[in-house]
Amino acid sequence: MSVTSPLGFVAAGVHAGIKASGDLDLALVATADAVPVAAAAVFTQNLACAAPVQVSRGHLAATGGRAAAVVLNSGNANAATGEAGLAVARETCALVAAGLGCAPEEVLVCSTGLIGIPMPIDPFRTGVPAVVAGLRPQGGADAATAIMTTDTVAKEATATSGGVTAGGMAKGAAMLAPDMATMLAVVTIDAEVDPAVLQRSLQAAVDVSFNRLTVDGCTSTNDTVIVLANGQAGAAEEAVVGRLLSEVTGSLAAQMCADAEGATKVVRVEVRGAATDQEAAVAARKVAQSQLVKCSWYGRDPYWGRVLSELGSAGVRLDLGALSIAYGGDVVSRGSVEVEHDHVAVTDHMAGRSIILTCDLGVGPGSWWLLTNDLTHAYVDENMGTS
Amino acid sequence: MSVTSPLGFVAAGVHAGIKASGDLDLALVATADAVPVAAAAVFTQNLACAAPVQVSRGHLAATGGRAAAVVLNSGNANAATGEAGLAVARETCALVAAGLGCAPEEVLVCSTGLIGIPMPIDPFRTGVPAVVAGLRPQGGADAATAIMTTDTVAKEATATSGGVTAGGMAKGAAMLAPDMATMLAVVTIDAEVDPAVLQRSLQAAVDVSFNRLTVDGCTSTNDTVIVLANGQAGAAEEAVVGRLLSEVTGSLAAQMCADAEGATKVVRVEVRGAATDQEAAVAARKVAQSQLVKCSWYGRDPYWGRVLSELGSAGVRLDLGALSIAYGGDVVSRGSVEVEHDHVAVTDHMAGRSIILTCDLGVGPGSWWLLTNDLTHAYVDENMGTS
Repeated sequence: MSVTSPLGFVAAGVHAGIKASGDLDLALVATADAVPVAAAAVFTQNLACAAPVQVSRGHLAATGGRAAAVVLNSGNANAATGEAGLAVARETCALVAAGLGCAPEEVLVCSTGLIGIPMPIDPFRTGVPAVVAGLRPQGGADAATAIMTTDTVAKEATATSGGVTAGGMAKGAAMLAPDMATMLAVVTIDAEVDPAVLQRSLQAAVDVSFNRLTVDGCTSTNDTVIVLANGQAGAAEEAVVGRLLSEVTGSLAAQMCADAEGATKVVRVEVRGAATDQEAAVAARKVAQSQLVKCSWYGRDPYWGRVLSELGSAGVRLDLGALSIAYGGDVVSRGSVEVEHDHVAVTDHMAGRSIILTCDLGVGPGSWWLLTNDLTHAYVDENMGTS
Repeated sequence: MSVTSPLGFVAAGVHAGIKASGDLDLALVATADAVPVAAAAVFTQNLACAAPVQVSRGHLAATGGRAAAVVLNSGNANAATGEAGLAVARETCALVAAGLGCAPEEVLVCSTGLIGIPMPIDPFRTGVPAVVAGLRPQGGADAATAIMTTDTVAKEATATSGGVTAGGMAKGAAMLAPDMATMLAVVTIDAEVDPAVLQRSLQAAVDVSFNRLTVDGCTSTNDTVIVLANGQAGAAEEAVVGRLLSEVTGSLAAQMCADAEGATKVVRVEVRGAATDQEAAVAARKVAQSQLVKCSWYGRDPYWGRVLSELGSAGVRLDLGALSIAYGGDVVSRGSVEVEHDHVAVTDHMAGRSIILTCDLGVGPGSWWLLTNDLTHAYVDENMGTS
């Protein structure tokens, strides 16, 4: 049930001294024999991308899609840290490479935490040897714990099909929006996969998992999803690889949504009847990122007028005479007016942990869904200060 | 200091019975002699626009830009109310026209309040005669009070130049975002202005006032800004008309921002050094609508890393090596890293009621500014339930 569930992967998590709390803050995921394997990644589209994103992107390009390890820290995003931050990210890879006996370019690096704080190298000089020494097949849980920031629980997932296993870990919590993942995740798989196929499969998996998640509409500086495929379970069809990666990333995305900062609700926003899938996605995002709609969910209030208003201002085609809005399958508005419905059933649905909002725009075959959350006092508390 | 400050306008506000609280809920602004004058309006771009928006748009088209009165109610937006809502809006205009002795098409109508609640006609049947009977040159304040919803103070403004006076009233508070105003406003001016010039002048004024305001990124179903020009102070140059309308709408927009739901801060987001003004506007909006950045402001925290992250994901051109971020004129980040700065001055600035955030993207001559607010516990409280 972790990033070390597939054959031939090891991991560890230690406290290197980046977090003042003394919690685990440095994670390492590696092939058990430290030999590089097929690797692929999807990175943030944020132009202000962090130093580790720049370094990992360069390393993957230099190796043509191979890596032996991923080193990750929490407590400091190493973003907006200039040349000094790049030097730290590069030296971190070099320290891991020295410990494992591979080339520095065969190590990928990720950071998460505060933006704009200079990243010290000292914790890595002592922490990397410790985390290398701790590598073991049972180390997945420690690694997943060591990448947590405001997460309240570690996120791990695994999936198996036809003798092939994929596993993964992730951190989330806030600064989360689609395009792309706005979080860190490492996925492993023991199938033999060509790097190009792996990249294609990962992108497809991300598109239906992390890219369907928006907590707050904010796309971070550090988003990275990395997959390593070591081939220890033999060759697998691309379809199998794709399904396993989608399953693992889908589970991790759902876990992130469930543990989003301050959230009391997980909301699945479904838009159907749009002119195109693209327009459905735009409409879903407009609703999912609406402060007013999110506050309603927190108050367990199905106030559909706000949903209609967001759809109307989303910039997509819709038929006001045919449009419908439903909570938990109960249609509350049709043709842009309220309709008779079971108020008790809707109230019960809004009171639960999971809400399903379905909007039919009434104009075409396009559809999309997104996972999101409510906007709560606790979210405000969490983000009033630097966190 | 009100919508009746210009020569020849009267107004009134009464309780017609729409608000259960017994507060004033029906307002009327009219020419003193009930003769139609030049009129222009800017309406919401929301496709799910309310019945009064549809009716007012039709009336202005039918008269070629002339009106004798604007009738407005609070307590119910008459939005998402179908054919029945349209009938109520039309009958409201007819009732006012009968009372004043003008044509129904010469009356414009606005509503604000809850969306999706059937609008009763009875309050208008008794309220319209009462509000017509109450019309007087000193009635501006009552009218401004009668259009309030969650506003805590009435919004009024006036401006004078070369013997010409403009006055206005507005309501705001939430569901406020640029493009367009996301509120109701009536502006009067005693200059003689051709309807086409009036429309052009109003649009220009709205572009630099209401369209520079975003409280929560939500564009409502009912946004309407109407101007009536009765010519009683004689002809005026287009430049004078434009300046006066901009001054009045600018004041009203600032008052709205100051009274936004739950807000403790008024924040002016300035973006310079963008490739184009359009890109500066996109970047400013991305920052102004960021839940994370808004929460920082509430906590008086200048956390510039979140600002940088929003700029980086805004989809506009920027030079990370030249980019700077300043609070209250104190540069806290330059070249995407933190720089030495006066922490006491920045802390003092963040503690005040008004914050000025300046972002220089370092690539061109484009600039833009927006007014916005912080995201607070009180905003969540206000919007957890239907309001």
